[in-house]
Amino acid sequence: MESKSILIKNATILNPGEDIKKSSVLIDNDIISCISDDLIHKDADKVIDAEGKLLIPGFVNTHTHLSMNILRGSGDDLPLDTWLNECIWPLEANLTEDICYVGSLLACIEMIKTGTTCLNDMYFNMGSVAKAVEDSGMRGLLAYCIIAFDDETLKKEIKNTNEFTSKYNNTADGRVTTAISPHAPYTTTPDVLKWVRKASNKENMPIHIHVSETKKEVEDIVELYGMRPFEYLEKLGFLGSDVIAAHAVHLSENEIDIIKKYNVKLSHNPASNMKLASGVSPVDKMLKKGITVSLGTDGAASNNNLNMIEEMKIATLLQKVHNYDATALPAEKVFEMATINGAKTLGMDDKIGSVNVGKKADLCLLDINTNYFTPNVNPLSHLVYSSVGGEVSTTICNGEILMENKKLLCVDEMEVFAMAENATEKILSKK
Amino acid sequence: MESKSILIKNATILNPGEDIKKSSVLIDNDIISCISDDLIHKDADKVIDAEGKLLIPGFVNTHTHLSMNILRGSGDDLPLDTWLNECIWPLEANLTEDICYVGSLLACIEMIKTGTTCLNDMYFNMGSVAKAVEDSGMRGLLAYCIIAFDDETLKKEIKNTNEFTSKYNNTADGRVTTAISPHAPYTTTPDVLKWVRKASNKENMPIHIHVSETKKEVEDIVELYGMRPFEYLEKLGFLGSDVIAAHAVHLSENEIDIIKKYNVKLSHNPASNMKLASGVSPVDKMLKKGITVSLGTDGAASNNNLNMIEEMKIATLLQKVHNYDATALPAEKVFEMATINGAKTLGMDDKIGSVNVGKKADLCLLDINTNYFTPNVNPLSHLVYSSVGGEVSTTICNGEILMENKKLLCVDEMEVFAMAENATEKILSKK
Repeated sequence: MESKSILIKNATILNPGEDIKKSSVLIDNDIISCISDDLIHKDADKVIDAEGKLLIPGFVNTHTHLSMNILRGSGDDLPLDTWLNECIWPLEANLTEDICYVGSLLACIEMIKTGTTCLNDMYFNMGSVAKAVEDSGMRGLLAYCIIAFDDETLKKEIKNTNEFTSKYNNTADGRVTTAISPHAPYTTTPDVLKWVRKASNKENMPIHIHVSETKKEVEDIVELYGMRPFEYLEKLGFLGSDVIAAHAVHLSENEIDIIKKYNVKLSHNPASNMKLASGVSPVDKMLKKGITVSLGTDGAASNNNLNMIEEMKIATLLQKVHNYDATALPAEKVFEMATINGAKTLGMDDKIGSVNVGKKADLCLLDINTNYFTPNVNPLSHLVYSSVGGEVSTTICNGEILMENKKLLCVDEMEVFAMAENATEKILSKK
Repeated sequence: MESKSILIKNATILNPGEDIKKSSVLIDNDIISCISDDLIHKDADKVIDAEGKLLIPGFVNTHTHLSMNILRGSGDDLPLDTWLNECIWPLEANLTEDICYVGSLLACIEMIKTGTTCLNDMYFNMGSVAKAVEDSGMRGLLAYCIIAFDDETLKKEIKNTNEFTSKYNNTADGRVTTAISPHAPYTTTPDVLKWVRKASNKENMPIHIHVSETKKEVEDIVELYGMRPFEYLEKLGFLGSDVIAAHAVHLSENEIDIIKKYNVKLSHNPASNMKLASGVSPVDKMLKKGITVSLGTDGAASNNNLNMIEEMKIATLLQKVHNYDATALPAEKVFEMATINGAKTLGMDDKIGSVNVGKKADLCLLDINTNYFTPNVNPLSHLVYSSVGGEVSTTICNGEILMENKKLLCVDEMEVFAMAENATEKILSKK
């Protein structure tokens, strides 16, 4: 591979947990090699003038289902049961590998356009998802989603999991890695979860699982096992710092202590939890206890977009009103959730989540000479509370420019939109 | 005035309460004169090709304070008291007529870019607000905001109100009209409110007032008058179908009955109510009782934008999660809130709020060949749940094109941004 470098000149750098500073950033191949005021043009093969731009780490979306972008708008304003049984599951039965590829590309386009560079996905037809992530230029932790209630199904699901991980882990120049994913405590058995823990230890792969999204599933687990979901998972020996638990809405005090004790990582999905009327996760409280809570959009069928900038605003507004506390989840904390906490959640904080020398060049530039960023007194506030994502102008992942001045370089979006309309016709005609 | 006509050809028309249809729309001067499939190019002076565009009525933002766009980002994550006492009021003391003009222009730019054509504002320095609304090409119901606890102040405030209404009502080709605005029950006296009711009757002008935004103000009114705010307003003879009550968060069953009985119009401001941790208004319930609830953004200091498309999503998500009911406030209802209910709230539903022959041409075109609107199965869903407002390409108010293909025709936005930065320096240097 030919060596190449990019100089981002005179950017206003907003890093999680730090004051804003103005500086220039040099990228060598896939790595941030220098941050300094003294960098000059001849240091780089390509120069990006970032005057009037805000430079942030690319967002890390820690729970989503990319393929579901193809199902966007097919079921809204329905109770969770009806939504799953009468809408999503019948439609999902029509999702082929080709259709999942298109849905995933559509999702990647949406994420790149709103500054997300890394995502965490669990679904089926995951080979197609991996291909879409590779083709889009993004970074992804991907997992085949296991649902099994008996030994025979578990065997089949182990095979599916192993096929996926062995084929795709550490591919696409290291941008695609794999996790192991039991769907949820209520859609698996203790045997499934024990196998997952063992396989995770052996392969050194994180575990991605839905936990306690709805009141009903918590009640079901309590009825089945006589304890709440995180208590059940603890008892199985399942928990650890490599577990990424999505949703975690309904939690007892004891469960919060368990999450903290095992350093379980959480993915908070506020828009989806609100749209499906699942409930409100005690995020502000858990962050104050030192638990790593990150941010995810969930799939586009229950959000209905994958825009992390919108998700930040929704997350903080929800905590404030739910806790009757305007100081809850302030802007700097939700920005951390969407960046460095995302990196920690995926076990990638040595590589991504902030603009620092030695880290991968996963970056995003926003145009702040815009209405949402005016007056320019507080870019962090404007990013969280005012912006809706349209100011993202340039997105870089692994040192590659995926979008420059709002032009996608990696994918032809009009072509993908046309493919998506075709795919949707196929899905709906079969329904 | 020279006669002129615009033909919007082959639009996908989304009207509140109606199925989507494809048709063409002819505008003669300021009025929608014909909607038909048979309209041809020679019918009009100007033709807009709306193939691949969604045509909707311009949004009606029923509670905002335009000038506050200049204060955006100056105070976040603060309790309401601290926010008002230590941040907003000291800054507001520095707001001159010139600064309010710039802030209001900034607000108008943001609204035009996100498809809002009509707004309802109450504040001070209202001459500047009226000038900004006139210059921007938007439609606005504007009011000087009365705060008074004694007769002498009331006299001064009556003078200010009369000066404003006599100078600005029915100006700017009828785009600017005026209301009478007591700030709130807790910032006025019975005498103030009685004068407002009399003046409103005499001048035939609507009344714009904050009511029951926070728990504390409800408690204060109960302590002062021995009854809750809407009970107090009823007893004063203040209520009527021309009253626009903003916020209306904390309501008893009896107050909801009173609101219904007098056909009081409400402006729901979910983002602001969440950000200031004020609470959740029982909007879904009130709509089901037949109360006219519309949508407002409040000012940019407590939102922090004036984007009605984002406000629709936040409104519906909040009702769903708060009521634990995913069917609460469905997409079609929140779209009605943001359009036709807005028009009803301002007493303008004979003129605006839907795409119908005989109404004013206050319209918005969105580009639906975009990621947020793909796949194109359900434009209403995508508008509410997926879009973030960046797809608005053309905004028309009173038959004038204010933005075409994302280019503002009425205002030079870069010039306004520069003016806003200057104004902000002045405000902060005085603080």
